[in-house]
Amino acid sequence: MAVRSNPSTSGRYAPPATVALENRAWPSRTMSRAPRWLSTDLRDGNQSLVNPMSPDRKLAMFDLLVGMGFKEIEVGFPVASQDDHDFLRMLIEGDLIPDDVRISVLVQAREELIKGTVESLAGARAATVHLYNATSPQFRRMVFGMSRSECKDLAVQGTRFFLKYADRLLGDCDLGFQYSPEMFADTELDFSLEVCEAVMDVWQPEQSRPIILNFPTTVERSTPNVFADQIEWLDRNLSRRENVCLSVHPHNDRGTGVASAELAVLAGAQRVEGCLFGNGERAGNVCLVTLGLNALTHGIDPGLDFGDLNGIRRVVEWCNEIPVHPRHPYGGDMVYTAFSGSHQDAIKKGFDARSRAVADGADPATLAWEVPYLPLDPQDVGRTYEAVVRINSQSGKGGVSYVLSSRQGLELPRELSVEFAALVQRTADEWGREIEPDEIVRMFLTEYASPRFLTVPVTFRKPVPTTLHVQGDPFVVGSDRADSLGDLGAHLASWGLRVDEIRRIGAGAADAVRDGVVVYADCTIGTRTVWGAGSAASLDIATRSAVSAAITRALRTSQPNREPARQPLLGAA
Amino acid sequence: MAVRSNPSTSGRYAPPATVALENRAWPSRTMSRAPRWLSTDLRDGNQSLVNPMSPDRKLAMFDLLVGMGFKEIEVGFPVASQDDHDFLRMLIEGDLIPDDVRISVLVQAREELIKGTVESLAGARAATVHLYNATSPQFRRMVFGMSRSECKDLAVQGTRFFLKYADRLLGDCDLGFQYSPEMFADTELDFSLEVCEAVMDVWQPEQSRPIILNFPTTVERSTPNVFADQIEWLDRNLSRRENVCLSVHPHNDRGTGVASAELAVLAGAQRVEGCLFGNGERAGNVCLVTLGLNALTHGIDPGLDFGDLNGIRRVVEWCNEIPVHPRHPYGGDMVYTAFSGSHQDAIKKGFDARSRAVADGADPATLAWEVPYLPLDPQDVGRTYEAVVRINSQSGKGGVSYVLSSRQGLELPRELSVEFAALVQRTADEWGREIEPDEIVRMFLTEYASPRFLTVPVTFRKPVPTTLHVQGDPFVVGSDRADSLGDLGAHLASWGLRVDEIRRIGAGAADAVRDGVVVYADCTIGTRTVWGAGSAASLDIATRSAVSAAITRALRTSQPNREPARQPLLGAA
Repeated sequence: MAVRSNPSTSGRYAPPATVALENRAWPSRTMSRAPRWLSTDLRDGNQSLVNPMSPDRKLAMFDLLVGMGFKEIEVGFPVASQDDHDFLRMLIEGDLIPDDVRISVLVQAREELIKGTVESLAGARAATVHLYNATSPQFRRMVFGMSRSECKDLAVQGTRFFLKYADRLLGDCDLGFQYSPEMFADTELDFSLEVCEAVMDVWQPEQSRPIILNFPTTVERSTPNVFADQIEWLDRNLSRRENVCLSVHPHNDRGTGVASAELAVLAGAQRVEGCLFGNGERAGNVCLVTLGLNALTHGIDPGLDFGDLNGIRRVVEWCNEIPVHPRHPYGGDMVYTAFSGSHQDAIKKGFDARSRAVADGADPATLAWEVPYLPLDPQDVGRTYEAVVRINSQSGKGGVSYVLSSRQGLELPRELSVEFAALVQRTADEWGREIEPDEIVRMFLTEYASPRFLTVPVTFRKPVPTTLHVQGDPFVVGSDRADSLGDLGAHLASWGLRVDEIRRIGAGAADAVRDGVVVYADCTIGTRTVWGAGSAASLDIATRSAVSAAITRALRTSQPNREPARQPLLGAA
Repeated sequence: MAVRSNPSTSGRYAPPATVALENRAWPSRTMSRAPRWLSTDLRDGNQSLVNPMSPDRKLAMFDLLVGMGFKEIEVGFPVASQDDHDFLRMLIEGDLIPDDVRISVLVQAREELIKGTVESLAGARAATVHLYNATSPQFRRMVFGMSRSECKDLAVQGTRFFLKYADRLLGDCDLGFQYSPEMFADTELDFSLEVCEAVMDVWQPEQSRPIILNFPTTVERSTPNVFADQIEWLDRNLSRRENVCLSVHPHNDRGTGVASAELAVLAGAQRVEGCLFGNGERAGNVCLVTLGLNALTHGIDPGLDFGDLNGIRRVVEWCNEIPVHPRHPYGGDMVYTAFSGSHQDAIKKGFDARSRAVADGADPATLAWEVPYLPLDPQDVGRTYEAVVRINSQSGKGGVSYVLSSRQGLELPRELSVEFAALVQRTADEWGREIEPDEIVRMFLTEYASPRFLTVPVTFRKPVPTTLHVQGDPFVVGSDRADSLGDLGAHLASWGLRVDEIRRIGAGAADAVRDGVVVYADCTIGTRTVWGAGSAASLDIATRSAVSAAITRALRTSQPNREPARQPLLGAA
C-alpha cells in the first residue's frame, strides 16, 4: 500500500491550557469507593445513533439500566425531541420508574424550553432537571456572539425560570437540579467557577436541596491529568461545597475517557456520567462498564450488577445497533482469550493452583483471584472459562492441554502434550485458521485413541513393552495405592506386555476422572515410542484400550501410503 | 431482560501497590515532543489473532508500517514460531528492510533460544534483540517456582548468552539490545530495578551501545497515575540513565492504555511500544494511532504519517481480520460525525467562520483549527467533510442546511431551513432510520423545486406577492449591487408579482453559487406562505422557476387526497 506523504500539520493545533495547581493532592490518593453513576445512554447515547432507538428499544435500555442498579438515568431532552417527550410521558404515566430511581432530563437555558421541560415531568415522583449552556470562548464568540456576562446571565436566568416553573407546576415532585457549563474543558476555569457560583446564588443549595454541578469535557481536549487538575481546582474553590455534588461527564475523543473519569474521582468528583460500552457522539461518552469493572477489580463494590455481562451486551447491541468491539475491556469477545503458548501455560498453572487451593479447603467465593493474564474472573461477569484458551498456530502445549482438560477431563502426560501440541500447531498452520476446541478433542481421539476410545477394546496378543500413565501420572504396582490397582501387573504379563515402570495414580488426577479411568500408554514398539490412550470403567480395560491404540498408530504410521487397516488388526481377537 | 443478581465479589480483588514518590514531577509537565515508537503489530498483535497473518498479510503490514514512518518494528519471535522465523528470513534475504528501519525480535532468556534468535538475524543490517523474562512474584511463585535471585540470574545469564552469540555470529550487524522485566506492573519496583541494574552490569551500556529498558504493564492493573509514578521512580533511580532508553509497553485491560503511555512519557519514558488501532492480546496493546494523533492535535509532530487514515485502516483490517470500531478515536467511521441538531449548528458556524477567514486571506494550511466538536480536521487524515453531518430524527436545521450546502451549494434562508428540517425529522421518524445526504437533496428538490429545478420553467400568469432570496439572503433592487440584478423589479411586475422586499445579494452567498443563480421564493399565496426554489443561469429565470415551484406546492398541498397534478399546471404556458 502506498501511503501518501503529508507535511506535518501539527502547527495548526495547540495544547490546551494547563492549570497552575500548587501541591495537587489527587496523584497521591487512591479510590476507596465508587462514585454515583448516571447513565446517559438514552440521551447522549441515543442522539449519536445512526438510527435513534424506537420506543421498545428505549424501554429495553431503561429496564436494563434499572436492572443493573442505576439510580440516576437521563431519559432525554423532551423539548428538543418529540420522541424523547413521548418516552418520558410513557415512563411517568405507565408508572415504570422504580421508587429508588431518579430520572433526569436535559434542557437549554431558555424560558420556553424550561417551561416545556417542567411540564413534561408532571406526575414524576423524583426527577432532576439538567440545565446547560455553552460557556467556552469558542462558543461565545463563534456560535452565539455573546460576552462572558451575557453567557453567565443566560445560566442565571435559566435557573430562575426553572425555580419559577418548578414551584408552580411540580410541587409534589422530589425535584433535583443540575447545571453544566458546556464545553467545560475548553472554558476558562475561573469563568466556569464564576458561572457556577452565580447559578448557586439563585438556587441556594442546602443540605435538603443540594445542587449537582456537572463538568463535561464535551470534546476531550487534554491529557487526563490536566482534567484532574481542573477538577481539583474546582473542588478547592467552589463555595457551599458540602451541598454540591461535583459531577463529571467525560468524552473519549483522545481515547482517555476512562482515565479522565478515574483521575477526576481522585481529584474530588463524586459522580460520573457515561454510557454502557462507551456509546455517545463521535468516540463516545466514557464507558460505564469499564469504570464499574475497574472499580470491582480494585476491590471496590461498583454498586452495579455486571453478573450477566453477555446479556447486558446483547441488550445494548440491540438498542444501539452498534457491536461491542472484540477487544472492548471486560465485555469484548476476545478479552478473556489467550492464544500464545506461554500465556496459555501460565493460565493453566494459575487454574491448577486455584484448583489445588480449593481442594485444600479454600472457598472459591472468597479466594483471592490471581490467574495470570486474567485481571477478572470471567465467571464474575457470567462468562465461562470455555473461551479463555483458544488454539491457533501460535499456541503451545499449555493451551492444548487446557482444552483437553477443561472439555474432556483429559490430563495428558507432559511428553504426550508436547507431541500432540506440535501436531495441532502444524494443522493450524496448514488450515490457516483457529482450531476449535471440539476439533482439538476430535483430533486427539482420532490420533491417539481411535478406533475404540471409551469402549472396551478387543484383546490382543502382540507383546509390547510400555509405560502406563493414568491421567498423566506414571504409576507403579506395589506402592501405597497398589491395592486399588488390583493385579494389573499380572494382567499385563498375561497380555504379553513387558512393563518398564508402573507408578501410583496421582490423587488429584484420579479425582479428575469422572467416568472411569483414562490410561495413556507410552509404548516402545520395535525401535519407536508410540503413545496411545484408552478409557474405560476399569483400569485393566482402559489399559488394554490404550495399548491397542498405540499399536494401531504404530502400524498406521509405518504404512504412510495405505489407509490404516484398523478394524481387521484389532478385530482379530 | 432479567439481569440475575450477583453478590458483590469485590472482596476477591485488591488494588495494586502504590508508589511512595516524593514531589512527583510528571503531573506538572507537558509533552513537548513525541516519543520513539515501536510497532509490535507483527509480534504482540499477530499472536493475538484468531487467524495469525499469512506471509502476504505480514508483508502488507510491514510495508504499511515502513510507509507510515516507523523506524522500529518488532517482527516476531523467531525461535517460538516457524512462521515468524521464515518471515524474518524473507525480510533479510529479500533485502526488504529500509536502511533507516531497525527490526526487533523477541526472545526468552534461555541459551538455546538466544542462540537460535541470533542465528535467525544473520545478514540483518540493524536489529534489536529483545530479551525478557517474567519477574513478577505471581509468576516466580505460580508459574516457574523461582526465587528472586534465580529470576535475576536468568536475566543476567540471558544477557551473557546474547553477548556471546552476538559477538560470534553478528559482527557486521548494528545490533541493539532491549530487556523487559515482564509483568513489570505487578513486579516489586525495587526488584525490577535490581534486575535491570544487573542486566546493565553485563551489557555495560555506553553512548555508542545504549540499552533499551522496556517496562510492560503486560496486564493493565492500575490507574495510569500509578504507572506514571512507577516510571518516574525508575527515571530517578536507574543508573547510567543517559545511556538508557526508557521504554513502556502498555496494555489496555482497564481501558486506560493510552493514558498510561501519555502519563509515562511525562514521567520520563522516551519510547512507546504498541499496535495500530490497539490490536494485541485481550483488550489490546496501546493504540499507536490514537497516541500519534493525540500528539498532533496538541501541536506535536508525531513523526508518523496518518495522512491516509482510511487506507491505513483498510490494511490493518485486512491483516488482522478485526474491524476498527465505529467509535475508535480518530479512525472510526462515526468519530467525525454529528447527528444532534445543536452540534450540527455549531459545526456549520465553525466551518462558516473558517470560510470567512480564508476569504479574508488566511492560509488554510496554517489557520488554527477550531471547528466545534471536531478535535481534528478530518482532511488531515484524508477524510472528507462528507460524513461530518449525518441526519436522523435527532438532527435539526443546522445539519440539514450543512448537507444541502456542502453537497449542492444550496444556502437556504433560515426560515426555509427550519421548515425543511422539520420535514426531514418527521421523515426520519417515520422511516426509523438515518436519512442519507442524497436522499435529503432529493427530498428538498422534490418538495421545493419540483418539477423543473435547474431547468428553465415555463412562464405563468397567476399573480402572487412574494419575497425573493438569492442563496439565502433577501435582496433589493436599487442598492449598490443593483446593476447586477438588472431589471428584476420590472420583470416581476410584468409577471404580476407584488414584491414586498428585495435586497442585495450577499457577497459570500453569491460566491458560493457555481452554476448560475439559486432563488428561494417565499410566496404569500392566498392566506398561506409557501416556499419554492429555482435555479438557472440568469436571475430572472431562476426567479420564475422558484415562484412556479411555490405555486405548485401551494396547489399540491391544498389537495392532499389527490396526486399532485404538476405537469398540466406548469406546462400550460
